[in-house]
Amino acid sequence: MNLWLRQLKKDIPADLHTPVELARFELGSALPGLKTELRVQASMGDAYRIDPLDDGSFLLTGGSTGLLYAAYRLITDRLCGQEITRPVSSSPKYALRMINCWDNADGEIERGYAGRSLFFRNGRLDYDADRIRTLGRLLASAGLNVLCINNVNVHYPAQLLLEDYLPDLAALADLFRPFGVKLMVSVDFSQPMRHGVATADPLDPAVRAWWQDTAKRVYAAVPDLAGFLVKADSEGRPGPFTYGRNHADGANMLAEALRPFGGVVVWRCFVYNCRQDWRDTKTDRPKAAWEHYAFLDGAFSDNVILQVKHGPFDFQVREPLSPLLLGMKKTKLAMELQLAQEYTGHQIDLYTMIPMWKELYEELPADNIMSIAAVSNLGDDENYTGHPLAAVNLYTFGLLAWDPDVDMTAAVTRWCRLTYELDPLQEQTLVELLLSSRRTYEKYTAPLGIGWMVTPHDHYGPNPSGYEYDLWGTYHKADRNAVGIDRTHEGTGYLDQYPQYFRDKYGDPASCPDLFLLFYHRLPYTFRMRDGRTLIQRIYDDHFEGLEETRAMADKLSSIVFPEPDASVIRERMDKQLYNAREWCDIINTFFHRLSGIPDEHGRTIYD
Amino acid sequence: MNLWLRQLKKDIPADLHTPVELARFELGSALPGLKTELRVQASMGDAYRIDPLDDGSFLLTGGSTGLLYAAYRLITDRLCGQEITRPVSSSPKYALRMINCWDNADGEIERGYAGRSLFFRNGRLDYDADRIRTLGRLLASAGLNVLCINNVNVHYPAQLLLEDYLPDLAALADLFRPFGVKLMVSVDFSQPMRHGVATADPLDPAVRAWWQDTAKRVYAAVPDLAGFLVKADSEGRPGPFTYGRNHADGANMLAEALRPFGGVVVWRCFVYNCRQDWRDTKTDRPKAAWEHYAFLDGAFSDNVILQVKHGPFDFQVREPLSPLLLGMKKTKLAMELQLAQEYTGHQIDLYTMIPMWKELYEELPADNIMSIAAVSNLGDDENYTGHPLAAVNLYTFGLLAWDPDVDMTAAVTRWCRLTYELDPLQEQTLVELLLSSRRTYEKYTAPLGIGWMVTPHDHYGPNPSGYEYDLWGTYHKADRNAVGIDRTHEGTGYLDQYPQYFRDKYGDPASCPDLFLLFYHRLPYTFRMRDGRTLIQRIYDDHFEGLEETRAMADKLSSIVFPEPDASVIRERMDKQLYNAREWCDIINTFFHRLSGIPDEHGRTIYD
Repeated sequence: MNLWLRQLKKDIPADLHTPVELARFELGSALPGLKTELRVQASMGDAYRIDPLDDGSFLLTGGSTGLLYAAYRLITDRLCGQEITRPVSSSPKYALRMINCWDNADGEIERGYAGRSLFFRNGRLDYDADRIRTLGRLLASAGLNVLCINNVNVHYPAQLLLEDYLPDLAALADLFRPFGVKLMVSVDFSQPMRHGVATADPLDPAVRAWWQDTAKRVYAAVPDLAGFLVKADSEGRPGPFTYGRNHADGANMLAEALRPFGGVVVWRCFVYNCRQDWRDTKTDRPKAAWEHYAFLDGAFSDNVILQVKHGPFDFQVREPLSPLLLGMKKTKLAMELQLAQEYTGHQIDLYTMIPMWKELYEELPADNIMSIAAVSNLGDDENYTGHPLAAVNLYTFGLLAWDPDVDMTAAVTRWCRLTYELDPLQEQTLVELLLSSRRTYEKYTAPLGIGWMVTPHDHYGPNPSGYEYDLWGTYHKADRNAVGIDRTHEGTGYLDQYPQYFRDKYGDPASCPDLFLLFYHRLPYTFRMRDGRTLIQRIYDDHFEGLEETRAMADKLSSIVFPEPDASVIRERMDKQLYNAREWCDIINTFFHRLSGIPDEHGRTIYD
Repeated sequence: MNLWLRQLKKDIPADLHTPVELARFELGSALPGLKTELRVQASMGDAYRIDPLDDGSFLLTGGSTGLLYAAYRLITDRLCGQEITRPVSSSPKYALRMINCWDNADGEIERGYAGRSLFFRNGRLDYDADRIRTLGRLLASAGLNVLCINNVNVHYPAQLLLEDYLPDLAALADLFRPFGVKLMVSVDFSQPMRHGVATADPLDPAVRAWWQDTAKRVYAAVPDLAGFLVKADSEGRPGPFTYGRNHADGANMLAEALRPFGGVVVWRCFVYNCRQDWRDTKTDRPKAAWEHYAFLDGAFSDNVILQVKHGPFDFQVREPLSPLLLGMKKTKLAMELQLAQEYTGHQIDLYTMIPMWKELYEELPADNIMSIAAVSNLGDDENYTGHPLAAVNLYTFGLLAWDPDVDMTAAVTRWCRLTYELDPLQEQTLVELLLSSRRTYEKYTAPLGIGWMVTPHDHYGPNPSGYEYDLWGTYHKADRNAVGIDRTHEGTGYLDQYPQYFRDKYGDPASCPDLFLLFYHRLPYTFRMRDGRTLIQRIYDDHFEGLEETRAMADKLSSIVFPEPDASVIRERMDKQLYNAREWCDIINTFFHRLSGIPDEHGRTIYD
């Protein structure tokens, strides 16, 4: 097992209770010869300052957790061969840097590709404390500070976390406390009804009282619980709509219950009609979140955070920034990313996400959001993330959550250097390969922002029309002449949800960036792109290139000497990726060739 | 619950041990005033004779089971209002009239649409003896005499039927014995390896000895076991190929073990490459069974029966007769049908099968096969078959297995009359509706013999290209100009596996029966059919008609007064069928319209 803190081999003692204590321990075990002084300044919170002193020692100043972050900074800089020679001050951009686990109480993980739950077994909180501490170390060293441990789709008996399992939850919170990691719990909006309350109507006094009592009990057990995460009225979950209430009614009711204890309600905005009729061309799923939330801007309590998926669909390889993230100026927002590679290769295919995240920030003023969250890619596999190289996404997400301006090459390089001891050439190869992996994946999968050409439900591998006539609102409507949905003002009107500069940028196919062309526009295969190629030729070219790049990536990867067991896992998964890339390339090309009848200009093989 | 023997309300006593005893009981309880004499003539076996005597009494002559069949004949004729006024002799065409249950030991049924297993719960044989007796009565009254209780895909712990569960198997066999129903068990070809034998090679002496010992033990417990059912080298099952042996080697080895006890080996011929590359246009799945078995004609022991699916694919709505059923003249064959509506509506949509079976017999000389089997549509739902009207398939399968020349209208009418007391007009409506239901289903689903446009894996509802690029060898290769696979001599050569008259009938698209056109031929949408319509127009017409017919069927069905609970179940499932038919109709039409760009001549709505 090679984790990015593999050098910290010493197990973390069970008798450390605060981040400062842990900071001292980590410094002592990682840098035994180094003199450090830790000075707590509580008001600094997560922020820290590192002062190199003349005698070669360091003065670390910060809040308790800030000192832990400072310690990891000092340790990891050293491990990367970087000396801190001038004073360093650092504070996180976002106060809540969250990981959402979609773990079910039975130990299954929804969209999990790294084994089973680290927290649950057989319907109980049941874990290996040493592994939890190692996870705490990983999270803290990446600057992450909130961990929601159970699935937003709350399946029984996960409800018991607020009931019979509360002492177990408290024990787990104790385990994470030295790492500065606060727990969060996904709650079931209808939970009062399990306790004799006749309704879950958020305006009903009995419901409000139930949640207030529950909050009191929960915070008595876990005083620093970060709060509740809620998926309501979505894909079959209960919610305020059942009672004719809106989502501000629902979220504010919970917020009122949590306010006395400093807790927040993180309310997911993933609401759409998942029973859409494919014949209906008026409804356009990407419009749903805006339609459900934009009119509520300003109506949410100050301890409510709306958690918005970065794109309007659902974690496709390429989606525009959600219009909610640009338009809800009077609401606290968190952006939700997904480390779990649900649509992006199941932690089999290489897919390093930070280039995608940096693109999002090109459109997103960093101040528009006040928190950031990512769906976990963790599981109980020895290496925690299934594919050893998928850990780069967890680590660099932490760096980004601390500082969205982080340089992506530096971030990925840092992870590589912390994780492996490669010679400089191999390290550079690995970094380049990771940074290019997402674009390669994009090339061999669904073209030009269209998305959704995956195997239904499983979401690995191609099935170009698998969702085409289904209930999920994810259609490409490819026919013999054209492909795509017109989402401009003339089409479904989705683009109208954006500011004018955004509409100008994407509204005209002649100027719309290529990679979003088929997200916004329906175009004939013969559409002439700015580079002179036809749309269909561009689709063929991307797919052949994506496959070639994957083959080149496999060659390069095989030139890097990884330690075992990573080497074997990486090799085996690369073989699967090669198979997958070839399937995607050939199937997508065949699909469009059957429709269009247009041959590849370069005469490459497209199968019948 | 309304079963076709609903009039026989009296529970069957547990202390009856032979078919003759049961026959006496059934006659006494169903026809209490009637005088009957039962005369056993053991040599007659399942055959019987009924002589009406001058005093109004009846003399029944037959083997023990024959007398039971005679009793049910007398009872059911009476219930149908038919008097036996002249001597009747009857004997079954096939000695083995088999039902194959795909029940797993955990109680799940593979492709089961009527609840969970009637035989297994929680990994054990565990059942309600009264329901088993009712089932025995149903089977015997339909003339069925062999019941294989466990899935051909033998999942652990079903293997224990030959091991620890043998006493339980014997107890179940005792329960079925009065009904003349013999049990059969699906076996795992690799089972010796669970017992310290190093191999399952059928030519290995240790393997042969293991099976011989096992047969001895099994027949000591269940002396009248019908035999073993085997799925080998198919869809991941173990088999002789692992050891470089052929299927005659495998089957004959088992046959040798069963011969001393009069048991048979029923060896399924469902072998094909289920890891096919969709790019490969040489391999054609329908050719597989012939390629694996035809050259072995004459090589099987006389207590081996090859069980051949009626068509070369897998129970699609329309398939040609398997070439094996025409070509293996020196081998004992059983034809396998499927009552479970895997691809034919999941016992939600109405689909009465006897018209399809009668079509098969138009091509199949009845003497070509010596047995007949059907995959069960049974489960533990109150009504045994999920949809009350699906029971017609179980009953009429029994009549067909007894006499393939049975008149299908008479058979369906008989079932209706035994099951419901409808007025004559309603009964006629119901019979017509059942008899037409398969053609209606065919019209709204995949067109003209092409098959496989179903939702992958689940097999309910349309997904025109769901399997198109998958590993299962089931492709239609529809493009903007044409659709279908050329299976003639010029194409994949599948048709070459048939006798000359068959090739002549189907080989030329100009003369090939319409409903098989796209099974054998690849044709442009503009292909002109004999009735003057283009192929594409025929596809549209069939689909609109199929939907209209379903709507008319729903109207007619709602005019029939069924007793409860059937009425509610029938109504609720008809609503689902209406939805399904509309989905199929619109999606298939849209799919072909997107490809062809050709509008409907009659201007009906085809969605974009």
